[in-house]
Amino acid sequence: MPPSILHEVLTAVFGVRGLAEGTPHLSVLLWERGLDPQAGTWSLPGGLLGADEDLRTSARRQLAEKVDLREVAHIEQLSVFSAPDRVPGPRVVASTYLALVRPESVSTPPSDTRWHPVDDLPPTSFDHGAVVESARRRLAAKLSYTNIAFALAPTEFSMSTLSDIYGAALGYPVDATNLLRILSRRGVVVATGTTGPTGRSGGRPPALYRFTDTGLRVTDEFATLRPPP
Amino acid sequence: MPPSILHEVLTAVFGVRGLAEGTPHLSVLLWERGLDPQAGTWSLPGGLLGADEDLRTSARRQLAEKVDLREVAHIEQLSVFSAPDRVPGPRVVASTYLALVRPESVSTPPSDTRWHPVDDLPPTSFDHGAVVESARRRLAAKLSYTNIAFALAPTEFSMSTLSDIYGAALGYPVDATNLLRILSRRGVVVATGTTGPTGRSGGRPPALYRFTDTGLRVTDEFATLRPPP
Repeated sequence: MPPSILHEVLTAVFGVRGLAEGTPHLSVLLWERGLDPQAGTWSLPGGLLGADEDLRTSARRQLAEKVDLREVAHIEQLSVFSAPDRVPGPRVVASTYLALVRPESVSTPPSDTRWHPVDDLPPTSFDHGAVVESARRRLAAKLSYTNIAFALAPTEFSMSTLSDIYGAALGYPVDATNLLRILSRRGVVVATGTTGPTGRSGGRPPALYRFTDTGLRVTDEFATLRPPP
Repeated sequence: MPPSILHEVLTAVFGVRGLAEGTPHLSVLLWERGLDPQAGTWSLPGGLLGADEDLRTSARRQLAEKVDLREVAHIEQLSVFSAPDRVPGPRVVASTYLALVRPESVSTPPSDTRWHPVDDLPPTSFDHGAVVESARRRLAAKLSYTNIAFALAPTEFSMSTLSDIYGAALGYPVDATNLLRILSRRGVVVATGTTGPTGRSGGRPPALYRFTDTGLRVTDEFATLRPPP
């Protein structure tokens, strides 16, 4: 008989909060366990894979059902967490996902659920802290070679806001002028031709930009490795 | 009762064959099913996840047991294939892996197992063809922003050989001079200071190179996105 193994899906939903308040920080959506095992610790949204759904369908269903989140700007698989003793009781293998939401989607979650700064997590359940860490590493890596920031940014933004978003996701400051130079040269962002409201520090209304794509793409392939036209 | 779902591991093992013969091509290791379902089709090596092992341990165990492959230069998770009807009978979710072997490891496999050119596959089992395709896409993407070619190349190589390897993996020719310029600038390869045997076309003995790292790393982060020193 093959071993009996359950299959769950866990999703690390990231959003940047505090942009308007000048305290941008990367946050993750967690819910507090009311019951044992590990009552009082904080868990990623998820649950068991249903009989008739694939993993992505399951991840989206569980975000809607468990934390009332119906729109994500990007979702992708992270690795599978499969240590035999990762949870007590029957063995459960976890397929994990990274989901990103835009600031306008960072809504108020249900009462047992809260956004927590990724840099200041409460006690997390089982291996969920390691899943958050893996999601953060994936996000930081993809910021360097893809346009993934489109899924964390408002539709239109000043470069000051976009550098706040990069800085929050990476954990260190990013210079807005350098960022604009690189993202423009790579065709990742373009000016909308309009300006936005003056920032907290006053001055001229800032130029607004938008991402050229709203799907993930690699932004810097070696020129020599591109397929022939 | 949670649904009963089996969990299997499948690995697409890639190697570049035909380098010495001047016919470099990316190949994948497949075994021919002797029994139904789908007798006569070709499958990726793999099998059910054991009760006391994690996925990576399982993948490596199955490569050793099923296709007598004990050394891979690189292995990484691909996505999970989870369509409810992907195989007949009880539901099986498949965690998939990409493994790369160096030319010197591209050994003779057991009798039911063969290396097949990725561009000319025999009839494949179930969704295994889609797994091979996903592995190839991952490899091609990572060639553009990581040093992953270290796991397909001999320990020391001429740039002509390395461009053959890139070309085989990407499916189109790659210019050796451009490749050397980019890989040197990024610190991915260095000259060994020695020369190798003269190639098929004669001429001077070619300079030999090696990869600076034998672990995967991203080779082109935006400078502006690097952490402060």
